[in-house]
Amino acid sequence: MRDVAIVAAGMTPFGELWHHSLRDLFVEAALEALRAARVDTVDSIYVGNMAGGQFVGQEHLGPLMADHLGMRGVPSTRVESACASGGVALRSAFFEVASGLSDLVLAVGVEKMNDGGDVTGVLATAADQELEAYHGITFPGLYAMIARAHMAAHGTTLEDLAAVSVKNHGHGALNPKAQFQNRVTLEQVMASAPVAEPLRLLHCSPVSDGAAAVLLCPLARAREFTDRPVKIRASAMATSSMALADRHDPSMLDAVTLAGARAYQMAGLGPADIDVAEVHDCFSIAEICALEALCFVDTGKGGAAARTGETALGGRLPVNTSGGLKAKGHPVGATGIAQAIEIVEQLRGEAGDRQVADAAIGLTQNMGGSGGSAVVHIFERV
Amino acid sequence: MRDVAIVAAGMTPFGELWHHSLRDLFVEAALEALRAARVDTVDSIYVGNMAGGQFVGQEHLGPLMADHLGMRGVPSTRVESACASGGVALRSAFFEVASGLSDLVLAVGVEKMNDGGDVTGVLATAADQELEAYHGITFPGLYAMIARAHMAAHGTTLEDLAAVSVKNHGHGALNPKAQFQNRVTLEQVMASAPVAEPLRLLHCSPVSDGAAAVLLCPLARAREFTDRPVKIRASAMATSSMALADRHDPSMLDAVTLAGARAYQMAGLGPADIDVAEVHDCFSIAEICALEALCFVDTGKGGAAARTGETALGGRLPVNTSGGLKAKGHPVGATGIAQAIEIVEQLRGEAGDRQVADAAIGLTQNMGGSGGSAVVHIFERV
Repeated sequence: MRDVAIVAAGMTPFGELWHHSLRDLFVEAALEALRAARVDTVDSIYVGNMAGGQFVGQEHLGPLMADHLGMRGVPSTRVESACASGGVALRSAFFEVASGLSDLVLAVGVEKMNDGGDVTGVLATAADQELEAYHGITFPGLYAMIARAHMAAHGTTLEDLAAVSVKNHGHGALNPKAQFQNRVTLEQVMASAPVAEPLRLLHCSPVSDGAAAVLLCPLARAREFTDRPVKIRASAMATSSMALADRHDPSMLDAVTLAGARAYQMAGLGPADIDVAEVHDCFSIAEICALEALCFVDTGKGGAAARTGETALGGRLPVNTSGGLKAKGHPVGATGIAQAIEIVEQLRGEAGDRQVADAAIGLTQNMGGSGGSAVVHIFERV
Repeated sequence: MRDVAIVAAGMTPFGELWHHSLRDLFVEAALEALRAARVDTVDSIYVGNMAGGQFVGQEHLGPLMADHLGMRGVPSTRVESACASGGVALRSAFFEVASGLSDLVLAVGVEKMNDGGDVTGVLATAADQELEAYHGITFPGLYAMIARAHMAAHGTTLEDLAAVSVKNHGHGALNPKAQFQNRVTLEQVMASAPVAEPLRLLHCSPVSDGAAAVLLCPLARAREFTDRPVKIRASAMATSSMALADRHDPSMLDAVTLAGARAYQMAGLGPADIDVAEVHDCFSIAEICALEALCFVDTGKGGAAARTGETALGGRLPVNTSGGLKAKGHPVGATGIAQAIEIVEQLRGEAGDRQVADAAIGLTQNMGGSGGSAVVHIFERV
């Protein structure tokens, strides 16, 4: 297996992009990555997208996007794992380069959610249709139950949950591509409209449009395309039950724990080696659970991390310096790639006001549904 | 890159399976493959599925299917390329084994179409939404235009088209898992109900439910699991424009031509080396165009192949011995894997009444939409 590097990245702003279609978003992000690497074609493309068929009536995104990018003929495949679709696109590209079959592979995540009708209903198709969605549960409801379980088991407070949103909006205010670049106060989060108790509006990531792209190649060739390659030290995936009711403890993200352990093993690293991380904060409780599953804090101690400043810029382990899904936005298929881009920028020292000093090792954790699937990548400055 | 083999296969009957859900179908096919190899877990799973979200309200099939198969935790990813979703699932599994990261990988294609409402409308999301589907075109319409173009350019006749259906129903009559096991006459095909002129009902593959699974491992380990491994000599993919109007000649399947050329190059083989082939006959004209694109016959000469018996069992190159999509059925996400299974059975000498004598090399060609994507695999008896 060959070592693999990311050599270029591109990303649209995230937000309500009414004047950009699904294909426009894809092309904008992909072209930015290709221009950065000064290449005009690739060997293969992976498109991470959750629900183009349901949102905008478009499946079969592989060839459509290759064509609109000016690369008719190039192999191009769509991969899907709900909100972890971007993560699996990156992982598929990694395999193709690692195998030796291809050298230059583009991984692009894209989602156009604002043109969809029943966005909450479409997202619910990432839950178990027969055991959950059919009966009316939505993702705010599922994560509310996770939050309740965590509060009951570990004494996590509403203030702990709100502190995650305050931190991530603070980071997002420093990110010119974030959907929300406004800071919020603890009081504003606590007083925002109830969505599914205990979760309020400002605990929830928004409905977003956007795309993000990274270009991969063998590490041995990386310096043909950039002076600052980032090595992929590990790519790991795991699954859990889709239905929350089938989990032994709804506040434990087993798929994240397993994917994290596999990634640490593959990289020969542990949680203490990570300098900066992007985790999947679709709801504020998700960041808390992810920190525990990735062993950044002990089980039950995730609630304190944001409140004490431990995971803020300047803290022991800055988490979601991009603003996270909460503030940067969450075009579901794009999120996994956007997370990787934030880490690439941090490891290259290109993160501007969000820069973590001397970041050498970074981690991303991307998750589908209520944690049915999880993808963890570890990256290294080389 | 390591050599890769298929060591086991499983497949449900194809048809209108009202008493089987999407997950039932997946599990039945996957378990048959696992039992044949006498293994109870794998390193990774790929699920080929076109439109679970639209047909039955279920995206995120990776973890759902792993869980229902009793493999909670195992990495499991859904891949999609419309009707070539099965082919890309096989290709993704091939990469993961070839890369050295995983040893045992399961590739399963599955589709549940009969529970869907507007099946024709859902399938149309595999066409270009903005340039084609939005304006009302459906796949019978698109392939009818391909047929018209082929007839105009090459003098292909209605009898040529009908002969493909007659041949494939003849083969399907020998396949106990085929949706249609009845023979049809040229007269019956010619007199069947018009769907989109010149295509009539008996030129069209049916709406089907079904699943098909293959288990892959490194060739070096294959004999731990079977006495009759089948080596994957080549795995190739290509794309073309999604919109038919963007093609230089609608009767030329450029993506198939390109994927075929890449597969022949990867295998170090040519069309004359192929003993048996399964091609994507979603409509009878598609088989004719595929034979030409894969260089089995000269351009424009595909129309005569079925009529003269060249591609029937006992002919020079038997094509679609399974019955093809026309008679075996076409649960869109499952088709690419089912094609591979027919070739595996042929190369193992297990095809019963459909056996091609001394078949050593076989090829599959799977296609998305009107040919926007194409996947070609070449297999060898070892």
